[in-house]
Amino acid sequence: MTITDTPASTRSEASALDLGPATHLSCRECSATTELGPYYACLECFGPLEVAYDFGDVTREKIESGPISIWRYKDLLPVPRNVTEVPNTEPGFTPLLKADNLARELGMKALWVKNDAANPTHSFKDRVVAVALAAARELGFSVLACPSTGNLANAVAAAAARAGIRSFVFIPSNLEQQKIVTSAVYDTTLVAVDGNYDDVNRLASELAGQYEDWAFVNVNVRPYYAEGSKTLGFETAEQLGWRLPEQVVIPVASGAQLVKVDKAFRELTELGLVAGGGPAVFGAQASGCSPVAAAYKAGHDVVRPVRPDTVAKSLAIGNPADGPYVLDVTRRTGGAVEDVTDDDVIDGIRLLARTEGIFGETAAGVTVAVLAKLLREGKLDPDAETVIFNTGEGLKTLDAVTPVVGPAGTIAPTTEAFRALVPEAEN
Amino acid sequence: MTITDTPASTRSEASALDLGPATHLSCRECSATTELGPYYACLECFGPLEVAYDFGDVTREKIESGPISIWRYKDLLPVPRNVTEVPNTEPGFTPLLKADNLARELGMKALWVKNDAANPTHSFKDRVVAVALAAARELGFSVLACPSTGNLANAVAAAAARAGIRSFVFIPSNLEQQKIVTSAVYDTTLVAVDGNYDDVNRLASELAGQYEDWAFVNVNVRPYYAEGSKTLGFETAEQLGWRLPEQVVIPVASGAQLVKVDKAFRELTELGLVAGGGPAVFGAQASGCSPVAAAYKAGHDVVRPVRPDTVAKSLAIGNPADGPYVLDVTRRTGGAVEDVTDDDVIDGIRLLARTEGIFGETAAGVTVAVLAKLLREGKLDPDAETVIFNTGEGLKTLDAVTPVVGPAGTIAPTTEAFRALVPEAEN
Repeated sequence: MTITDTPASTRSEASALDLGPATHLSCRECSATTELGPYYACLECFGPLEVAYDFGDVTREKIESGPISIWRYKDLLPVPRNVTEVPNTEPGFTPLLKADNLARELGMKALWVKNDAANPTHSFKDRVVAVALAAARELGFSVLACPSTGNLANAVAAAAARAGIRSFVFIPSNLEQQKIVTSAVYDTTLVAVDGNYDDVNRLASELAGQYEDWAFVNVNVRPYYAEGSKTLGFETAEQLGWRLPEQVVIPVASGAQLVKVDKAFRELTELGLVAGGGPAVFGAQASGCSPVAAAYKAGHDVVRPVRPDTVAKSLAIGNPADGPYVLDVTRRTGGAVEDVTDDDVIDGIRLLARTEGIFGETAAGVTVAVLAKLLREGKLDPDAETVIFNTGEGLKTLDAVTPVVGPAGTIAPTTEAFRALVPEAEN
Repeated sequence: MTITDTPASTRSEASALDLGPATHLSCRECSATTELGPYYACLECFGPLEVAYDFGDVTREKIESGPISIWRYKDLLPVPRNVTEVPNTEPGFTPLLKADNLARELGMKALWVKNDAANPTHSFKDRVVAVALAAARELGFSVLACPSTGNLANAVAAAAARAGIRSFVFIPSNLEQQKIVTSAVYDTTLVAVDGNYDDVNRLASELAGQYEDWAFVNVNVRPYYAEGSKTLGFETAEQLGWRLPEQVVIPVASGAQLVKVDKAFRELTELGLVAGGGPAVFGAQASGCSPVAAAYKAGHDVVRPVRPDTVAKSLAIGNPADGPYVLDVTRRTGGAVEDVTDDDVIDGIRLLARTEGIFGETAAGVTVAVLAKLLREGKLDPDAETVIFNTGEGLKTLDAVTPVVGPAGTIAPTTEAFRALVPEAEN
């Protein structure tokens, strides 16, 4: 499992690995190539590695005849060709809902919500974990692990249970009881660590170096893991009838999701599966953790780390690994990165729920509120076809709205009492 | 909106209603017919009414070319032909997962889990509410309402929001804060009623008689509402490759779901869409609310009401409307009705999560535990193809497992501390 410096072509020919169309790993900074393996940092420059492919012939018809899950795109992912034959949580192909009510309120012409709360553990993390697990097995790992504060922990614990393999999930010891339960129920080995998420993350990196059978999904198999987010882009295009939207708004935590969705759109275009140019890509952050938005607004190419303080905990990454790439994508496509206050986040959750019957987590509130702010500021075209991503489930962040919603009142069980409470109800 | 006694044929010809293949309502007790309308009780005998159809030509191909939701079966449901053109939550076509790990633990040959937690508000109630709403609009109602203690409240509030119509949800005032939030967030008019669920239900029936624009989904449009559960049966058959399983285990609250799934299997058989006989149908109850299991075991045809006391609150209906029909179906098909203790329910939730990565609500724990009990007692064939239904999401009943799952331990952020906690971890 050490990185050699032989040419990529030699390496992939020498390999007996089946990772589908993946041919090698490529450094996102210096473009040096590395053979497929459990590598995540370039030996030349320590830059992040990314999967490179030779896709061959991929057609709409072949995709459409596949399963109703992310595996319909397996020919575009770094996973074994028989991936559907191994038990997995079968995430993806979540609904793309036309959001006419929300569009009307915001003065927009055509808006859709990609609703990833429909995934097995109700966040987009099921996608990336499923791809990471499939690649990890092929790479010879026998244990799945991660540091996490919530959605990722749920997804790893559930995916490992379904696959019948052992898992270890590392969390900060001060995590909410609710998030502990929703991981521990899958019988993962849950380890509470005295410290903050940075401490947990550092411990995970150290353990990844010592336990060589362990795949830490977001550490040593991260290049494969991150590719899973492409499926959000593939599905959006297919569900629009093999078209790309004109604008997309995507929440930014590490930034990997936004970058990979853009990559998906470009791959579909290059393969001739969709026509025309890609959308303007907009990033959404909470003001309490908005290092990428700050860099965007300041015109910087680098992202200065911050200490997160926001209700949107699933987006609270103060030092986002893909931050610079988010800046590249949003600037190249004519998008932007914007941020909103925690009050706006709560309003965003409620607006989406009230207009479309979708109860998203705090990250969804960020996305909806940023959409509204971009429209107010004239940075997003209200007449262009727009897709926003709801990446998680409101049931996991109930505390955010608990103080502000509730019953109209409490009454005795009589029709008279009801009429007194709601006199305007018609009969 | 009064029921007349003219023949059904005359009534449906006179009607301008488009409820798809539905032709009239038929009394489940005396078979007297009633025209399509907002009627739920037979004028002749006060028995419950049920929708009757003339299906015409329905093919597998036509269904398979439909949307990935319950609406692919619209030609088998009492809904307008243009139902997909009106904004709705698009529930259904949830995953049918092969459960090899669970099968192995239980000594079974072939087991599947139909996972309805993937629905928009994460329970099967999204199905019945979507059908009720579509029919209610066609019947001229302009407001959606229900009495509920949880899943139904979520589903009604979300469906009304998405459809852009007003809703009223009536709940007992002592309901858990969590269940209040998950309905109120959709901006429904939530009315807390001082009293138990029976009091709330009685108030709803009184209001249904006074507010003639209001469709109480489980009261005055119940015949249409209940038909929505057929889609669980349709999907199971299609997802098995247009075959029926040999055994199904279904949780029993009112009993309507079990009865309608059996009806779905019979309709598919009559239409020639599947071959062979239907499965043995087994009902699952919690011992703390098991009036149907008690009647089954005693050999009775009637169900004696009980006062519920169980952790499985979504199944806690002490006087189940469809109880006698559940007895009919289970006896006719060679099934049974069984019940399990609350401790068994918790074990069932954990078993399903640990083996398949599916975190079901307490009702799922009931179903899994009943499956295990039936196998132990030799009442269910371990070699026959079996499907069990997970009808809701564990995130909604966290309290049930919170006392019994948690971290392996809390450690300092060092690899040494980890090794001391989990010495058997390999490296």
